[in-house]
Amino acid sequence: MDFLRHFVLVCVISVAFAHEAFDSHLLPRPLILEFPDKVENQLKELDGEIKLRCDSWRFNVEANNLNPWKTIPEDCSDYVKEYLTGRAYQLEMELASTEAEIFAQSVKLVGDGKDVWVFDIDETLLSNLPYYGDHGYGSQVFNADEFDNWVLRATAPAIQPSLKLYIELMDLGFKIVLLTGRSERQREATVQNLINAGFYDWDRLILRRDEDQGKSAVHYKSEKRSEMEIEGLRIIGNSGDQWSDLLGTSVSVRSFKLPNPMYYIS
Amino acid sequence: MDFLRHFVLVCVISVAFAHEAFDSHLLPRPLILEFPDKVENQLKELDGEIKLRCDSWRFNVEANNLNPWKTIPEDCSDYVKEYLTGRAYQLEMELASTEAEIFAQSVKLVGDGKDVWVFDIDETLLSNLPYYGDHGYGSQVFNADEFDNWVLRATAPAIQPSLKLYIELMDLGFKIVLLTGRSERQREATVQNLINAGFYDWDRLILRRDEDQGKSAVHYKSEKRSEMEIEGLRIIGNSGDQWSDLLGTSVSVRSFKLPNPMYYIS
Repeated sequence: MDFLRHFVLVCVISVAFAHEAFDSHLLPRPLILEFPDKVENQLKELDGEIKLRCDSWRFNVEANNLNPWKTIPEDCSDYVKEYLTGRAYQLEMELASTEAEIFAQSVKLVGDGKDVWVFDIDETLLSNLPYYGDHGYGSQVFNADEFDNWVLRATAPAIQPSLKLYIELMDLGFKIVLLTGRSERQREATVQNLINAGFYDWDRLILRRDEDQGKSAVHYKSEKRSEMEIEGLRIIGNSGDQWSDLLGTSVSVRSFKLPNPMYYIS
Repeated sequence: MDFLRHFVLVCVISVAFAHEAFDSHLLPRPLILEFPDKVENQLKELDGEIKLRCDSWRFNVEANNLNPWKTIPEDCSDYVKEYLTGRAYQLEMELASTEAEIFAQSVKLVGDGKDVWVFDIDETLLSNLPYYGDHGYGSQVFNADEFDNWVLRATAPAIQPSLKLYIELMDLGFKIVLLTGRSERQREATVQNLINAGFYDWDRLILRRDEDQGKSAVHYKSEKRSEMEIEGLRIIGNSGDQWSDLLGTSVSVRSFKLPNPMYYIS
């Protein structure tokens, strides 16, 4: 930019010294010389302001400061789409998985088959981005029927950093427990989807039974973890995209929160 | 930018038609005309890449995914400084405080003086940015002696969104408990600083006694909250910039995590 300014100045000076050779109407007035930059800056400030506000919203979502929310802020729909489809989402998940791996490698397993790592499924092992992409990336209120149809298709791709972590944990000797808010009626499609996406050899897959319907996720998942503890399992790690996957009772030694600016589950 | 390009073109054409009037060495070659933009884009990409990576690091810090860390990543020192001294940090704290206020207003207090809101102090009520600004915004390893000298000066300014929340909570009838990792020996300076910054009428200020030294923050703070619960106090809300302020046992009904990319306390 500085170079262009300098060149313009050189042009203006040169032109000034050669003023007899052309029509002076071609020369913009100095005031106009300042104009484009101002307009450009104003536009940048507007984008910058929205980005700042959506960044702030996303920080507060991920820090679990916001009340249960049903849709993303209207102004942030482009921001969320850009975040999810660009590299930022990918990089954040990669770093979270790398940190989980470093922690897992540091743990001395007892080796009695009771060292457990818990994974949530949706937006943790499997990505529903193809579905949410068709539904405004969280800007539309969740439609349970349409989402059920998507689940039955069993085509959600793996979240690659989580698949990498999953394989590493298996190699290290962790027992893998999948604990999901999906219903028992979706077991077959869920198993099929997990296999399609490259997951294998989990120890157990816990889905909501009829008696679990209506419980909050944090209540249901705490209950299930508590049952595991009573059984003698040691919950070393827990990966989930919702705080309700990670908080409550019988929590893991370390937990890893994956980003999710599309929806909130209590 | 387009306007400038157009103007440069006009200059070049004008100058070309007036070439006899000045030294042709003043004319850059067309190749050079393209150069500044390319350099500019390369720099932007580099900045963009660092920003993406530091954003990803910050998300993982705030989601409590990272192991205890001693300094910020070297590459992120400009990023953290820009974040803290720009509007982003301010906006995030404002939204966190607003959400805390909305929650506090929704609570039906018993009104027996036992409804408590717990606040941490450093980076929650008081800002040590003037100190950390002189120490690389988290890029230098923490120096306890130098920080103690800063504390004794009692000049840390209030974090304004927290002061606003504090006053609102007092008005609503909450009992305010300040629970800090600062030492009992810093009580006088801490009280003086809080008053200087506009805080008043807290119910109690709990600092680490000699027997609390050496305990992790999450252990020490959980113990103190547990003592409050045994006393019959109800911990409704808790605001802190560290997860060790908020997690552990005897946790509050809702907690609010303020951002802090400068340091980590276990």
